[in-house]
Amino acid sequence: MKARKWRTLKTERVFATPIFDLHRRRSVHAKRGERDFFVIDPADWVNIIPLTAKGEVVMVRQFRHGIGAFTLEIPGGMIDPEDESPATAGRREMQEECGFDSTDIIPLGRVHPNPAIQPNFCYSFLARNVKKVHEPHSNPGGSEETEVVMVPLKGIKELISSGKITHALVIAAFSFLDVYNPPPRARPPRSPSVKR
Amino acid sequence: MKARKWRTLKTERVFATPIFDLHRRRSVHAKRGERDFFVIDPADWVNIIPLTAKGEVVMVRQFRHGIGAFTLEIPGGMIDPEDESPATAGRREMQEECGFDSTDIIPLGRVHPNPAIQPNFCYSFLARNVKKVHEPHSNPGGSEETEVVMVPLKGIKELISSGKITHALVIAAFSFLDVYNPPPRARPPRSPSVKR
Repeated sequence: MKARKWRTLKTERVFATPIFDLHRRRSVHAKRGERDFFVIDPADWVNIIPLTAKGEVVMVRQFRHGIGAFTLEIPGGMIDPEDESPATAGRREMQEECGFDSTDIIPLGRVHPNPAIQPNFCYSFLARNVKKVHEPHSNPGGSEETEVVMVPLKGIKELISSGKITHALVIAAFSFLDVYNPPPRARPPRSPSVKR
Repeated sequence: MKARKWRTLKTERVFATPIFDLHRRRSVHAKRGERDFFVIDPADWVNIIPLTAKGEVVMVRQFRHGIGAFTLEIPGGMIDPEDESPATAGRREMQEECGFDSTDIIPLGRVHPNPAIQPNFCYSFLARNVKKVHEPHSNPGGSEETEVVMVPLKGIKELISSGKITHALVIAAFSFLDVYNPPPRARPPRSPSVKR
């Protein structure tokens, strides 16, 4: 069967939150008639793998309200309207959450976090030769709180296999780096034991 | 800085949709006081890589309302209360969306699709030696419409690299198969050119 497109008749916001709004979308299909679909509209997201010259990934331990528990992630977040590009947004998140920086930032890929109910992309980057430039930001008025954890790149595969890293978008970023879109010379020169 | 936990004071449903509800969660933090967080509560999800004895993946082309466009995915969906387990839910989705079946189903891993705003997991499976048993279900009263597309397993990497497959949870499933949790003898015996 050839799948057919649905055409949007109207979209209305039914609830607003600080990080996304909920919309009811009335759509029509040639054979199925009119239906309501619900979508949320977060901004585009970004995440970034900060890699030191010694082959360590700068990760963050973070409390996540959806699961009510801590996760082990790479820095990331929403792309703000003030961000010049997804890459600069990723660099900003890395600076804020980790206090690390680099100008050597390489795109790895982008994914749809959830195309069924969200239109947005999540862009993934690799930052090479990152160095600590200051302490992570700790905005007392904000609600984000992260703890920096240094993890050898060669240990990432085991952390994903064993279920210690569970965030789908973090796994997508590492899968681009490891297999689907590895950048040239991503392997740090001082870490010959890193396997990819 | 040591990241601290937030404690939930109360959760109330502020909007209901057919596939998820929106909740406002009032939480308290030792240093940050009380805040509201918004979370959605979809059921657990499942997806499954149906692989034929000839090394072809049975994929589905599907209209996704979040992005308002078609995606190339593997079969998957919500785990229903009637499903005995995530594996049987994956098998059911494979039968319904593709008309293919197998009893040789292997767990690949599970991920949090979005731990910031969702508590649920997505479980991924591999189904080996799948065979066509009937036409895909086309429920005229439903809103899902899928078109089966046969894709050689050896072509998946290029489809992800080039951005033809964009669904984060589909990429997570293939990344488990390809690198993070490859099952023994996942390589189909009749397809010696499949590289992993």
